Amino acid sequence: MGYFPVSLEKLIDKFASLPGIGRKSAQRLAFYLLSLPEDEALDFADAIAQAKKSVHECSVCHNLTDMEICGICSDPRRDEGVICVVSDPKDVIAIERGREYNGHYHVLHGVISPMNHVSPDDLKIRELVARVSAGDIREVIMATNPDTEGETTARYISRLLKPFDIKVTRLAYGIPVGANLEFADDATLMRALEGRQEM
Amino acid sequence: MGYFPVSLEKLIDKFASLPGIGRKSAQRLAFYLLSLPEDEALDFADAIAQAKKSVHECSVCHNLTDMEICGICSDPRRDEGVICVVSDPKDVIAIERGREYNGHYHVLHGVISPMNHVSPDDLKIRELVARVSAGDIREVIMATNPDTEGETTARYISRLLKPFDIKVTRLAYGIPVGANLEFADDATLMRALEGRQEM
Repeated sequence: MGYFPVSLEKLIDKFASLPGIGRKSAQRLAFYLLSLPEDEALDFADAIAQAKKSVHECSVCHNLTDMEICGICSDPRRDEGVICVVSDPKDVIAIERGREYNGHYHVLHGVISPMNHVSPDDLKIRELVARVSAGDIREVIMATNPDTEGETTARYISRLLKPFDIKVTRLAYGIPVGANLEFADDATLMRALEGRQEM
Repeated sequence: MGYFPVSLEKLIDKFASLPGIGRKSAQRLAFYLLSLPEDEALDFADAIAQAKKSVHECSVCHNLTDMEICGICSDPRRDEGVICVVSDPKDVIAIERGREYNGHYHVLHGVISPMNHVSPDDLKIRELVARVSAGDIREVIMATNPDTEGETTARYISRLLKPFDIKVTRLAYGIPVGANLEFADDATLMRALEGRQEM
């Protein structure tokens, strides 16, 4: 367009390249950054560079960390006999927020998805099998998303883990806490019926 | 929270500090940046630093530029006898997009707003008066937003420019092109009636 200075156009382009940020929002964000005091704006730039440089995957569970082994894997108070398998680092946060789970994690970094050309080799599945075959694991909890791809991935992995003498479980399906039966979808309701428990 | 590595938390905080970006979006953006190849992520950081360092106000019209005098002010094909006064650099783009206006601009960087503690001295009004008193200006077009504050600012400036022998005009109010009369608000309709023109 050429209406803005080149470096400002470039910054707007950068923001517009982020997921969910349109051209108008990108403009707004770029102008906001320019309106900040110089040190604050440079601090933002620095935060990106620092995060990119220091954050990598934990060599054990593949969660994101800035140490060699992440805080959860190196915490002696946690039960290393249980591994919860999730597809994304954000899912670790979701489960940790509940403050109830006390085992370890394994982050796959995706799910098997032929449509998106993601095969089992693209995920950290081999590393999970290696962990199970090496250590004293009692249970692996599959906590991938309850959709087709998450389900497929969970089934694939549970089959791989069959030869080992461990328990492989799956998060329970059912009615969300606080939800209204009337508005629950049929699939969820059926799963909730199937998984009914004695009171 | 401490669930993420410190540098990642900091990056999320930075994104969350941007206007219109909530905590969830900030997380999504930070994760996206981390998923980029290193050079692209650093390029983003660099774009911020570069824009912040090189972009400043044009010494004549106070629009944003990376030169001493902006491209519009230094363009010899443009009419320097006409100045269009806008409150924001984005308004320059909006008018330029029409490809019809061929004069110069003056960017106030805000509007008079006692509620937000913005007084005339906080805007580039003194600089506008200096331009008018120094040069061969024939006309000043007030193009602040058609709201109370924009209106107040336009009236304030037009009074300041009274002593000079120039024409001071205001963008026409009226029904937007392509709009439906039925849905026009009363104030706009009244202004459109007042401003009716012979056919």
